[in-house]
Amino acid sequence: MIYLDHAATTKPLKNVLATYHQIASKHFANPSSPHHLGESSEDIILAAKKIWCDYFNIPAHGIIFTSGGTESNYLLIKTLLFQQRQNEAVHIIATTVEHASLYETLKILKRRSDISVTFLQPEKNGKISRNQLVQALKPTTKLITIQTTNSETGIQQDIKMIGAFAQEHKLFFHTDAVQAFGKCNLAHIFDHADAVSISAHKIHGVKGIGALLIKHPENLAKPFYAGSQFGFKQGTIDPALIASFAVATDDYISHEKTRLDQLKMCRRYFIEQLQAAQLPLTIINRENEQSHIIACLCDNVSGDLIQQALNRQQIYVSTKSACQSHSSGPLRSLAPLFGDNQHHHFLRISCGYFTSLEDLDQVIKLLTKHLRK
Amino acid sequence: MIYLDHAATTKPLKNVLATYHQIASKHFANPSSPHHLGESSEDIILAAKKIWCDYFNIPAHGIIFTSGGTESNYLLIKTLLFQQRQNEAVHIIATTVEHASLYETLKILKRRSDISVTFLQPEKNGKISRNQLVQALKPTTKLITIQTTNSETGIQQDIKMIGAFAQEHKLFFHTDAVQAFGKCNLAHIFDHADAVSISAHKIHGVKGIGALLIKHPENLAKPFYAGSQFGFKQGTIDPALIASFAVATDDYISHEKTRLDQLKMCRRYFIEQLQAAQLPLTIINRENEQSHIIACLCDNVSGDLIQQALNRQQIYVSTKSACQSHSSGPLRSLAPLFGDNQHHHFLRISCGYFTSLEDLDQVIKLLTKHLRK
Repeated sequence: MIYLDHAATTKPLKNVLATYHQIASKHFANPSSPHHLGESSEDIILAAKKIWCDYFNIPAHGIIFTSGGTESNYLLIKTLLFQQRQNEAVHIIATTVEHASLYETLKILKRRSDISVTFLQPEKNGKISRNQLVQALKPTTKLITIQTTNSETGIQQDIKMIGAFAQEHKLFFHTDAVQAFGKCNLAHIFDHADAVSISAHKIHGVKGIGALLIKHPENLAKPFYAGSQFGFKQGTIDPALIASFAVATDDYISHEKTRLDQLKMCRRYFIEQLQAAQLPLTIINRENEQSHIIACLCDNVSGDLIQQALNRQQIYVSTKSACQSHSSGPLRSLAPLFGDNQHHHFLRISCGYFTSLEDLDQVIKLLTKHLRK
Repeated sequence: MIYLDHAATTKPLKNVLATYHQIASKHFANPSSPHHLGESSEDIILAAKKIWCDYFNIPAHGIIFTSGGTESNYLLIKTLLFQQRQNEAVHIIATTVEHASLYETLKILKRRSDISVTFLQPEKNGKISRNQLVQALKPTTKLITIQTTNSETGIQQDIKMIGAFAQEHKLFFHTDAVQAFGKCNLAHIFDHADAVSISAHKIHGVKGIGALLIKHPENLAKPFYAGSQFGFKQGTIDPALIASFAVATDDYISHEKTRLDQLKMCRRYFIEQLQAAQLPLTIINRENEQSHIIACLCDNVSGDLIQQALNRQQIYVSTKSACQSHSSGPLRSLAPLFGDNQHHHFLRISCGYFTSLEDLDQVIKLLTKHLRK
């Protein structure tokens, strides 16, 4: 089996699962319970937080645990709208290429008379320009939410430029970094962004745990009575999921250079081999070196056909992001680059820390066989 | 250690954790991924659903997995509000004793000009009466959301009566059964309710997984593109969490009579012993035989004092629900019974399937020592 669908999810590390198991059996109490057993759960959560505090340079009460990237994005929107004063009109700037959790939620919110949303479609190069932000800005704009890395094309937005624009206009800037965390160095992202969404299962953690990270939580009104999540979120939080997320994060951070070099090497090697084989295939976003995603258009055949051919050989790749897999329409992420009619040709190969060049050779061999037919 | 805080959370069963571990290591793929590995994840989820379909007699597409009870409750409100037509006024009937996830969310929603909420305060016996529903009803009423069992007092609402009222007036009736599932037989709850929230970690499952169960999902407009959750919910779902929830549910259902008898016996025994010892302590909701919660007021001392004294002997009980533990105000659940000034005396002992009479003897001994001082 060769797994090349790391943008969809990753295999949990052995020590991630071991930590989960150990904590779930020994420290099962509700961290909000007032007894020793509850305190021991709470202690585990506090200790786990250190890893994100140190890496991102944010306060412990700026880490709000969620069930994953989708809920982190929801929570951001919910929290920002909670700041809205009665009858205040709020304008949000987003993009057409955001993850469905933001894109569809904002589409629904837009129906409300007090909320307006501008969905910027990236320029031909897949990126949002400063000029687009300038054009979209309104006196009522409160929030910019723009992803760090797209889950289908791997295209990265210019977070530094967007952050500078937001600071200049005193706007709150959130970035969905679910596909970026663990794939590029984000240690300085809070120089630019006010809030960041991340998820454990994209970095070899387990599913069901993620976080919304907030630089200045003290500046935000909290919707709920303070609790273990400081009034930002309700619901029982789990020391086992959180500690296992910390283990996955720690594993990445401790090996950050090695991991990123490996991804870069895989990407470079694969693209070189593709070019050497002169296959009828277009590589999207080729110049970007900082992505684990190799996004392609198969020139003459459908991506599905190739994906299924690889599937039969136990090589697992995708033709769209998993969250879009039940929709058959055009891919929003491709529209800026190719319009609405290339999605049938799309193929996504996403490498992981443990992908080997031999794995990639196998894929090239099969691609050669099927694309040359 | 004697753990008597089962209303806050329960210890995961060994086979629950074993299943979690096995699935998380072997079937880690995103169930929405189009390849074999993704399909195997999806197959596990489909197989797991059978347990709830059979017990509750609901269709598979009426099971929407969430991260727990809180999110199930959110999702219900979100889904119901998605049915709202443009400019349509919507009225919701709830109670003052709902879990914070519903109570505080509805408080926030109430600020919107198109949404109104009536929070019924239960009668002196802790229950909502038909007459209260009649009084609250408006032409714009769309939803009744009333809990099955209160997490602090253990008081159960008359779901049959409320369901009949809702059917009579064509209202959608949701009940938060997070504290009821596994503590009383709910096999026929869908004769009365349209939607039910449940959570795994209250029945010896792991934290981070729950469900919103819907009787007629086909009657509801879906907010999102259809996906693995039929358009009701976004986000990656986890075969490991879901399969482990199914194991916990199966364990309960296969031993339902034994489990419920055990809870009943514990409760009866404990109350008898309390009475025999003639301790200065009032038992709330004494006549209810179907609750794992023994809710008391310590007549002359604070609940905290007793809780801490037990804590020192490694006996773990609570003085409020965990979700309220960071708030120091009156308990909403006690107000109908005693007004706003008895919460300092509150003590909650919640039994589990594996609580023994010897455990309870220990508690009685310590209560006698501390209450008789």
